Amino acid sequence: MTRSFHFGFLLYPNLTQLDMTGPAQVFSRAPGAFMHYVWKTLEPVPSDAGITIVPTDTFETCPQLDLLCVPGGVGQIALMDDAEVLGFLKTQGKNANYVTSVCTGSLILGAAGLLNGYRSACHWMWRDALTMFGAEPVNARVVRDRNRFSGGGVTAGIDFALTVVAELWGEEHAKLIQLQLEYDPQPPFDAGSPERAGPELVARARAPMEAAMAERRRVLEQAALNTPQG
Amino acid sequence: MTRSFHFGFLLYPNLTQLDMTGPAQVFSRAPGAFMHYVWKTLEPVPSDAGITIVPTDTFETCPQLDLLCVPGGVGQIALMDDAEVLGFLKTQGKNANYVTSVCTGSLILGAAGLLNGYRSACHWMWRDALTMFGAEPVNARVVRDRNRFSGGGVTAGIDFALTVVAELWGEEHAKLIQLQLEYDPQPPFDAGSPERAGPELVARARAPMEAAMAERRRVLEQAALNTPQG
Repeated sequence: MTRSFHFGFLLYPNLTQLDMTGPAQVFSRAPGAFMHYVWKTLEPVPSDAGITIVPTDTFETCPQLDLLCVPGGVGQIALMDDAEVLGFLKTQGKNANYVTSVCTGSLILGAAGLLNGYRSACHWMWRDALTMFGAEPVNARVVRDRNRFSGGGVTAGIDFALTVVAELWGEEHAKLIQLQLEYDPQPPFDAGSPERAGPELVARARAPMEAAMAERRRVLEQAALNTPQG
Repeated sequence: MTRSFHFGFLLYPNLTQLDMTGPAQVFSRAPGAFMHYVWKTLEPVPSDAGITIVPTDTFETCPQLDLLCVPGGVGQIALMDDAEVLGFLKTQGKNANYVTSVCTGSLILGAAGLLNGYRSACHWMWRDALTMFGAEPVNARVVRDRNRFSGGGVTAGIDFALTVVAELWGEEHAKLIQLQLEYDPQPPFDAGSPERAGPELVARARAPMEAAMAERRRVLEQAALNTPQG
């Protein structure tokens, strides 16, 4: 018999939906998987890309998760001092077997005090901010430190999720899911990381963020001050 | 000034959500992109992986799309003789600049008579069924034939969408989006295609489908009989 395994994502306004929908597609095909998409209420939650998703659970109704996953996106900023959200993550994170993130979701885990002393991935543009929360930023697509797994930016969530499935159910299961999803990527360009994209494209990617960058940095610093150590 | 460009996805019950959410993440970052997720009503639509998505438009309210995209998934079967759905696709497909699909979405385009005489991709497990609709199956991750673009199974939608963006807005835009999404894939295993996965894993992937396979084949054959030629 396959025991049930509860995967839960924090589903919040203005998340980058692919941070969540990529790993969700992988995890949902694991043996015994139950999927939870959790927010404050059951009202539909707007993500980026114009996709609005309906939560399955609220913080109150969500059972203890086996694996907690926090995706990233610009909505991350608004959560950094949200006591209700951080409280939910702390409570779940204490008892979950795995505490995980994709993209800037690691900064939210950081604000909840769940990455202090851990190595973690993050989107390349925000990776260095992990140090504010006592975490060690790692430039890798998938990072594991004890029971913390993290994926880098957005599409790294697919690699992250297959790695988690291999860890929990074995390589054969991960390979089976990879085949079902035809994950044999052939990116049309070689521009998926700042190192490969080169300085000009990196500057273009940063440009529209500059105005918001200072404010985001300020929010991060404030959150770091509020984050429990230990 | 950037002119607006309307991307529209057919959002239907039991689609494979990553078929849609992968390309949607890419397309939504194209200059002037407006995103439409279209179904019969505005009621939330259950996809696989436990993710329920709220449509933005109905068939009646949806404007003429510049690019029509049909994702795949087991829900595809129920649409093969759905006159309302096929009618919507025919009308949109006649005037859209681009008619596209991901995964088994190409079979739905086929049933709407939109692939007769065209080369197309599809999920590896169902690719050969394209011939029933006068289409030529191609074993490739991204296929273009005139104004038809198609992606293979599930995650191929990301490669497909970047290819479309490069075609429409130029390589620099596609590379910029690729960098933003950190699409520098590093699959933990080499099992993403039937050729790489080998016969044992392919058999394991097919096994749970065998029971449904005959019924799905019957539905396809019936749909092919109903499909207008020309």
